Amino acid sequence: MVEFTVTILGCGSAKPTLRHHTSSQIVSRLGKLYMIDCGEGTQTQLMRYGFHPGQLENIFISHAHGDHCFGLVGLLSSLSLDKRTTDINIHVPADFVEILKAQIDFFVTHAEFSIRIHPIDCQEPTLIFSDLHFDVTAFPLEHRVPCYGFLFREKQGSRHIIPECIEKYGIPRPEIDRIRGGGDFTTADGRVIPNEVLTTPPDPVRSYAYVSDTRPVMQYAELLQGVDLLYHDATYCEGDEELAYKYDHSTASQAAEFAKACNAGKLLLGHFSSRYETEDCFLECATRYFPNVLLADEGVTVRIVDKKNG
Amino acid sequence: MVEFTVTILGCGSAKPTLRHHTSSQIVSRLGKLYMIDCGEGTQTQLMRYGFHPGQLENIFISHAHGDHCFGLVGLLSSLSLDKRTTDINIHVPADFVEILKAQIDFFVTHAEFSIRIHPIDCQEPTLIFSDLHFDVTAFPLEHRVPCYGFLFREKQGSRHIIPECIEKYGIPRPEIDRIRGGGDFTTADGRVIPNEVLTTPPDPVRSYAYVSDTRPVMQYAELLQGVDLLYHDATYCEGDEELAYKYDHSTASQAAEFAKACNAGKLLLGHFSSRYETEDCFLECATRYFPNVLLADEGVTVRIVDKKNG
Repeated sequence: MVEFTVTILGCGSAKPTLRHHTSSQIVSRLGKLYMIDCGEGTQTQLMRYGFHPGQLENIFISHAHGDHCFGLVGLLSSLSLDKRTTDINIHVPADFVEILKAQIDFFVTHAEFSIRIHPIDCQEPTLIFSDLHFDVTAFPLEHRVPCYGFLFREKQGSRHIIPECIEKYGIPRPEIDRIRGGGDFTTADGRVIPNEVLTTPPDPVRSYAYVSDTRPVMQYAELLQGVDLLYHDATYCEGDEELAYKYDHSTASQAAEFAKACNAGKLLLGHFSSRYETEDCFLECATRYFPNVLLADEGVTVRIVDKKNG
Repeated sequence: MVEFTVTILGCGSAKPTLRHHTSSQIVSRLGKLYMIDCGEGTQTQLMRYGFHPGQLENIFISHAHGDHCFGLVGLLSSLSLDKRTTDINIHVPADFVEILKAQIDFFVTHAEFSIRIHPIDCQEPTLIFSDLHFDVTAFPLEHRVPCYGFLFREKQGSRHIIPECIEKYGIPRPEIDRIRGGGDFTTADGRVIPNEVLTTPPDPVRSYAYVSDTRPVMQYAELLQGVDLLYHDATYCEGDEELAYKYDHSTASQAAEFAKACNAGKLLLGHFSSRYETEDCFLECATRYFPNVLLADEGVTVRIVDKKNG
């Protein structure tokens, strides 16, 4: 199964602290990097954990609050200083476009690459991006400003050809891709060998969901049904539901209830408020509702495995 | 002599690295804080070195390059989250005002304090700020964009009354401030005691100059004559004069020659390019031209003493 990971660059909330950077993470598949959110200092965090920003071609910003985007113009600026020539795509809520463009025009004046801004503006879950690795669906969350969650779903891979069959049936190399794609094979003497004899099924399609700042959004339990890894806003701990509601966030327990409803493989909690000294309470509360909980922390990499194998 | 210090929060150049943050420093006098420049991550650096941003009322930005200002909106945003109510003054080159205001309007929406932006726009050294502690003079530097140096000069203090004289001449308490201000004292029996008998001179006025990104500016040797501490752009080391010229910066040696011409007390080098593994060469080169050189480093605090006592 190919490498598919999420690395936390920052998992604090509104203000950076000495314990937690503000939000940013890297989704990586087969060495291809995707960034989600870009709080202040993200470019330094990238360096700290050994990521090469040159490999980054897509950045997804959940919403235009500083703790999710204040590092973006600095990162772009540094890419320009690095003499980058590859274009970069930035997927941002539509309300962020104007001020982002203004900043880029003012500060990133010598870029030898294009910065393509893709506004996100949807009321329903919407496919906003697709490449060889992923389909990315944005879904609107419930926060003070337009805010989106992102579902990264792997593209269905090819079937696996059974190595022994190649020799046994004399399959020539040019045929292999067609068979991986589901085709049968006709031998030199005219026998048709059905695909299911020649191949095993493709790897299961894995998925990762990033649920950014939001009140609980139980309406997406179906959209995220069976998600292998679910990152969820857990700004507050159990007992602080009123604060969570007031500021349009969730508690660790609410995140866990949602993970349960989604039948998720694993729950990764983050966006911790600086009001708590440690996050032990978050883990304790969440595991009462859902068994498989991890706390985000800077530098932590979570390997996304098919939830049945997790 | 009252405490007057400069603390380095960041002394790297264009890009933050794992060794150096981008430019920012804190000038402190008797616990009153002034910030010069505010690169990305400055708010975290403030926390790291134990400064309370609530005590900050004036921020001076030398120029609108990201490595000198990308932390500003994040800092203001956090001050707002901290429920600050004291106004803050931001002194910035005029060309930075529009984009700064646009960012503040978009991101700092709930501030219960005023953000007063004071544009700097002068062709000659100009007094831009004055309070109980300092007169601050801005002087235009030679960089790609409008860029200013800042000279912090202490206000002249009072004369010191000689404690023994109070009893000897029967000086009543209400008279003391007047005598400190230079007045003579008339005793109960009508004798006039001249001020110089009653007092010793005020502490010498100390000064600190921040020479931000610039080609050498020997024309300011007179303005900065006798400055007690001189911080100077030393992006490049000796041998890289061509690069320094091309990118409108200085070498460590050029900084040292300037310090010598200024008859400075001490030279503090900073804004180091990330192309050098260490800054040993900077120190070595600079001390060939000027004896009293320090290398800036994050967390370093330099006590500013009268240069005759330094």
